[in-house]
Amino acid sequence: MKLFKQIRNANWFSNLTTFIIIIYAILLGFKTSDEIAHSIGKLWIYLDLAVTLYFLFEIFVKISVDGKKFFESGWNIFDFLIILITLIPISETNTDYVMIARLLRLFRVLRILQARPELKNIIDMLIGAIPSIVDIVILMFIIFYIYGIIGSFLFKDLESHLWDNLLVSMLTLFRILTFEDWTDVMYEAMELNPIYWIYFVSFIIITAFVFFNLFVAVIIGEMEALREASKDSVKNKVEDENQKLDKLQLEIEELKELVRSLKNKD
Amino acid sequence: MKLFKQIRNANWFSNLTTFIIIIYAILLGFKTSDEIAHSIGKLWIYLDLAVTLYFLFEIFVKISVDGKKFFESGWNIFDFLIILITLIPISETNTDYVMIARLLRLFRVLRILQARPELKNIIDMLIGAIPSIVDIVILMFIIFYIYGIIGSFLFKDLESHLWDNLLVSMLTLFRILTFEDWTDVMYEAMELNPIYWIYFVSFIIITAFVFFNLFVAVIIGEMEALREASKDSVKNKVEDENQKLDKLQLEIEELKELVRSLKNKD
Amino acid sequence: MKLFKQIRNANWFSNLTTFIIIIYAILLGFKTSDEIAHSIGKLWIYLDLAVTLYFLFEIFVKISVDGKKFFESGWNIFDFLIILITLIPISETNTDYVMIARLLRLFRVLRILQARPELKNIIDMLIGAIPSIVDIVILMFIIFYIYGIIGSFLFKDLESHLWDNLLVSMLTLFRILTFEDWTDVMYEAMELNPIYWIYFVSFIIITAFVFFNLFVAVIIGEMEALREASKDSVKNKVEDENQKLDKLQLEIEELKELVRSLKNKD
Amino acid sequence: MKLFKQIRNANWFSNLTTFIIIIYAILLGFKTSDEIAHSIGKLWIYLDLAVTLYFLFEIFVKISVDGKKFFESGWNIFDFLIILITLIPISETNTDYVMIARLLRLFRVLRILQARPELKNIIDMLIGAIPSIVDIVILMFIIFYIYGIIGSFLFKDLESHLWDNLLVSMLTLFRILTFEDWTDVMYEAMELNPIYWIYFVSFIIITAFVFFNLFVAVIIGEMEALREASKDSVKNKVEDENQKLDKLQLEIEELKELVRSLKNKD
Repeated sequence: MKLFKQIRNANWFSNLTTFIIIIYAILLGFKTSDEIAHSIGKLWIYLDLAVTLYFLFEIFVKISVDGKKFFESGWNIFDFLIILITLIPISETNTDYVMIARLLRLFRVLRILQARPELKNIIDMLIGAIPSIVDIVILMFIIFYIYGIIGSFLFKDLESHLWDNLLVSMLTLFRILTFEDWTDVMYEAMELNPIYWIYFVSFIIITAFVFFNLFVAVIIGEMEALREASKDSVKNKVEDENQKLDKLQLEIEELKELVRSLKNKD
Repeated sequence: MKLFKQIRNANWFSNLTTFIIIIYAILLGFKTSDEIAHSIGKLWIYLDLAVTLYFLFEIFVKISVDGKKFFESGWNIFDFLIILITLIPISETNTDYVMIARLLRLFRVLRILQARPELKNIIDMLIGAIPSIVDIVILMFIIFYIYGIIGSFLFKDLESHLWDNLLVSMLTLFRILTFEDWTDVMYEAMELNPIYWIYFVSFIIITAFVFFNLFVAVIIGEMEALREASKDSVKNKVEDENQKLDKLQLEIEELKELVRSLKNKD
Repeated sequence: MKLFKQIRNANWFSNLTTFIIIIYAILLGFKTSDEIAHSIGKLWIYLDLAVTLYFLFEIFVKISVDGKKFFESGWNIFDFLIILITLIPISETNTDYVMIARLLRLFRVLRILQARPELKNIIDMLIGAIPSIVDIVILMFIIFYIYGIIGSFLFKDLESHLWDNLLVSMLTLFRILTFEDWTDVMYEAMELNPIYWIYFVSFIIITAFVFFNLFVAVIIGEMEALREASKDSVKNKVEDENQKLDKLQLEIEELKELVRSLKNKD
Repeated sequence: MKLFKQIRNANWFSNLTTFIIIIYAILLGFKTSDEIAHSIGKLWIYLDLAVTLYFLFEIFVKISVDGKKFFESGWNIFDFLIILITLIPISETNTDYVMIARLLRLFRVLRILQARPELKNIIDMLIGAIPSIVDIVILMFIIFYIYGIIGSFLFKDLESHLWDNLLVSMLTLFRILTFEDWTDVMYEAMELNPIYWIYFVSFIIITAFVFFNLFVAVIIGEMEALREASKDSVKNKVEDENQKLDKLQLEIEELKELVRSLKNKD
């Protein structure tokens, strides 16, 4: 148990884990090339098994040392789930099943995030930014929804099948949002009625405007919050001064009274 | 009347309204799929009637309770107009008329905005930002107008019919602004005269530069205003201090005078 | 002369000018439609003459009243030049000449800028921002120049004729910067040597990175300058306080000396 | 040696160098046009030799005057390496070798950067910004890597050969990031399974979101650092005031004690 503790806190242990993840990621990359995949061949099965066993060993060491505290960190739970999920064997006969198992195995690469704290911080920051954009996303969805229904209502019978139903329409609208060949879609719709350019131009202006403008507004809002926090120290100091000045005023008042009494006494 | 008041202020009442709007929106979405539209069939007419009646009931309750105050909120007027407009029956024989009535019905989904205050705030913020960008929009329009006239003057006879008149030219320029296959338009124009690339490149640089740069300038301007407002509290405090210091100075002056008189008296 | 002064300062005079410019701009727009151009026909020549005469009258009134002061404003000189240049008659026989004269006439629309001060301010602001981006433009030009020479050196013999010489190469690079069908250009070049994707991807990363990042850096710089200016008032106030405090200290010192002398005297 | 010093510090010397670099750059540009390249012909060889000799002379002067100090500036080392590398003669028979030698010669144009300090500052600033974005780049790479492996796993057998192996997949993903005909790629993949739009839409949302959002976060971070630095002066002044006020308080305390003792004495 003491040995486990030594291993768990050793630098070489976390470095070894990082190293194995990177090697594993590189090998996954090389496997995408047919030639290399063949030459690695059966070796891969043993390699994969070795990595699986190493990860199991690693997580076992960590849990046995940290105990309950291990599961208090969201990142540890994330790691734990990845290792658990990728335990599914890939040597099954059902091909669909194998495909998913193989892809899930890929998520092991995400364990690299915990190896570099800066990356963890960025992810944490991104997750922290979600609440401030959730309403913008809802608004975007409403706009997509309304335009999607209008689109599939007006352009349903077009030959390009880009407006067959709401889902397809929203995918087409997403495409228009990225400006990807949106004029082809528009020119086809304008053959029904030349006035339909309003639909496309208004959508682009609204979504580009809403998206960009709201985004900037959110960032300004977050900056204001940051600035307020950093400005507090100056504000507090100035307030301290004000209190000191009030106190000084009182003291001088007392002093004057004292001197006056001295004068009267004379 | 008292019952109406209870209903109007009840949480379940506003939640029910939100729920009905969402259900209505989802059904509108499913209706875009031909198969589902058929299977819903006549049921839809009764559903639509039920929703219409509920909305009428809801607005009646609100107006009867709030009275004149109801129409003081722009959002209430917005709701009222949407319900009023979508009262137009959709079972008419004139097809064009039906189409518009159906599309107007879609605007009922926008009532969801009032259900979530955060969304209302975002819309209010966007409306508040309009005055600060209206001049940029005017400037953009002037640029589009001038380039549009030049374009329809120079490229009128091109086979693509992208420069037939000012309106078409401005639509083509909007397309160029989004970078959508703008080189196809340019290469066609350059067949008339190879020097015409200047027209397109200058337009992209001016509009991209003007649009983006002015936009950022406006945002900086608004941020400055925000910062000024938040800085006022510090400024006011420092000003308070200055006045207090002046007062202290006077008091000490008096004190000195007092002591001096005491001394002289001796 | 007094009458001229009254006219020059009258609101209806500047409003009339704005009105005439807008009407003139709208007519120019309608003229781009063949049908309307025919129906206006000869009327246009008289209209154009009338507007020309009005502009001459207007500038004559302004100069005769303001005298030398008229030419002190850059905007007035701009107006003066536009009116001067568009005096060139358009009824010449030389077609090329007519075309340019007609297009120059279009610049009269730009006189609208002086009618609305907010637009003038935006233009002034944009001109003021030029010095802070001139070095970024130079840097971008150097990058375009080097990539242009490399491009026309490596891809000269491609069939698309997109790299025939430096100028054409730089136009192609501008196209790539806007992401417009850049992969078509890349895939063609990669047929020569598959490694050439580095040329395109590096160009996109460098220009997008340089352009966007530098731009933001410039904006931050300008914001800092603005903030410094607005913070000065607080800084000055705090400095005032410091001086007052020093003075107070001296006064109290004197007071103590006074009281001490009083004590000793006793 | 004294002559060298005079030359090295003379304005005309650095101006001459800048002038020669610009002329050299312009000539390189003209050489991309076949006609001009022919008419320059053999003259170019002598011109190139002259420029090479001038650069050698220039660097010799600088090193002989500055000595070791010359190599303390990164920009001088950069210049030195460029001159050294471009000494490789271009009149070799091996064509591949000639091509690289010619392209390397192009880097001489980069010496212009040292001629204008503002450009040097921008480059220095860019290099200084690298550490703050290195983690974002790593994160982007991980996302590209994972999506690349999934892509080459799912879409390997598509006819467009856009997903043949990891490298090709990542190039395709870069293309999707720039929105360049990404729907063509998506529609082809959706023929395998209509659900695959999730792969493309999620990639665009994640990379656009991560890229833009993180970028802005980094900029905000750097701005905060700048603001803190500039705010320190105010903070220090306010702290000074606080100390002075404390001192004043003590003095007045002493003064009161003094007066009190005076009173008691009486």
